[in-house]
Amino acid sequence: MQEQRNKAQLAATIDHTLLKPDAMKDQITKLCDQAIANSFAAVCVNPFYIEHVAERLKQTKVQPCTVIGFPLGANTSFAKSREAHEAVGKGAREIDMVINIGALKAGEYKFVLDDISSVVNMSGAARVKVIIETCFLTDDEKKVACEASARAGAHYVKTSTGFGSGGATAKDIKLMRSVVGNDLKIKASGGIRTLEQAQDMLDAGAARIGTSSGIAIIESLME
Amino acid sequence: MQEQRNKAQLAATIDHTLLKPDAMKDQITKLCDQAIANSFAAVCVNPFYIEHVAERLKQTKVQPCTVIGFPLGANTSFAKSREAHEAVGKGAREIDMVINIGALKAGEYKFVLDDISSVVNMSGAARVKVIIETCFLTDDEKKVACEASARAGAHYVKTSTGFGSGGATAKDIKLMRSVVGNDLKIKASGGIRTLEQAQDMLDAGAARIGTSSGIAIIESLME
Repeated sequence: MQEQRNKAQLAATIDHTLLKPDAMKDQITKLCDQAIANSFAAVCVNPFYIEHVAERLKQTKVQPCTVIGFPLGANTSFAKSREAHEAVGKGAREIDMVINIGALKAGEYKFVLDDISSVVNMSGAARVKVIIETCFLTDDEKKVACEASARAGAHYVKTSTGFGSGGATAKDIKLMRSVVGNDLKIKASGGIRTLEQAQDMLDAGAARIGTSSGIAIIESLME
Repeated sequence: MQEQRNKAQLAATIDHTLLKPDAMKDQITKLCDQAIANSFAAVCVNPFYIEHVAERLKQTKVQPCTVIGFPLGANTSFAKSREAHEAVGKGAREIDMVINIGALKAGEYKFVLDDISSVVNMSGAARVKVIIETCFLTDDEKKVACEASARAGAHYVKTSTGFGSGGATAKDIKLMRSVVGNDLKIKASGGIRTLEQAQDMLDAGAARIGTSSGIAIIESLME
């Protein structure tokens, strides 16, 4: 049975997200205004728009969030960490970075850790969420990625980019929770389009829901 | 009717490509060795692997190629141009960058031009290919993107990332050719998996074929 949550509680978990490559500034403005009106947790956009979002969300509690090394994660650590640094300078308060999936799968754990650390170190006071892109990983690889995220001082582990072959599952949330305990929070993302799905993720232990369907989800609760 | 090409002529058009986020170093090494053995034009990988590719291709005619702002293009111009600069420093001889699609669709042509110019200017002697991601564009937008690429001093216009909702078509190659004439070359990419498709793109005016199916395409020719 799903836990009962009221509108405010649910809204406070939603990262209102638009990462499509053809998104235009007007759509991003609307996204911000919707997030403010609904008291969502954050607005998550590509780096090109973070300055505009930070400006639009000024003097509200909604956090400006951007994505780094997104969605493939196969950039150099230098490029990722500099991209994060630039984004924080432009007003990002949350940084959702993608791990180096190929390095993880090749067993280069030290590199994966250093890659995350480089972004954490260049993100100042911003919260860092580490996207482990579960769809490409074995359960053991998911665990290693969570451990590395914790050791690197990240604030969240996050399931998916939404651009891979699969998204969040309650099973993965539970697995991630079993590794990070209460030290890190968990963000569920990728393919979450309904209230039912969102509630399942929260029940499994997620603290945030990354979705482009935040309005629909909130409206379902009110029906 | 398709123009006749022998194996060497066809191979010289192929950018042997592996951009999957879970690609491991061993696969990239194999990709390089296949490209050398078949005398392909280039090996195209994510930035994390460009240093390894440049080392592996040293003293061969195969060009080390990487992708910038890939695949969404919605990074800042600063991040894109620095990522290109770093890649060239690590041995990239070809730079496949993604335009800012949202800015183009919003009519911010000056920005789109400056964004491309920033990458061209930071890429030194490397060839720059501008991915216009045709699947998101109207024909007019495709034309504007080609014009901007020419004005910015790029060397190629390229159809697709392979991560969007569609790939290369002969119709788009002809449209792009009608804008850039012989000043820029054209790279067809996205969904090209057969010899038939590759020949169609070359007949339409493409000079390069970006594909992860280079071996299968070449082997079809020899049957």
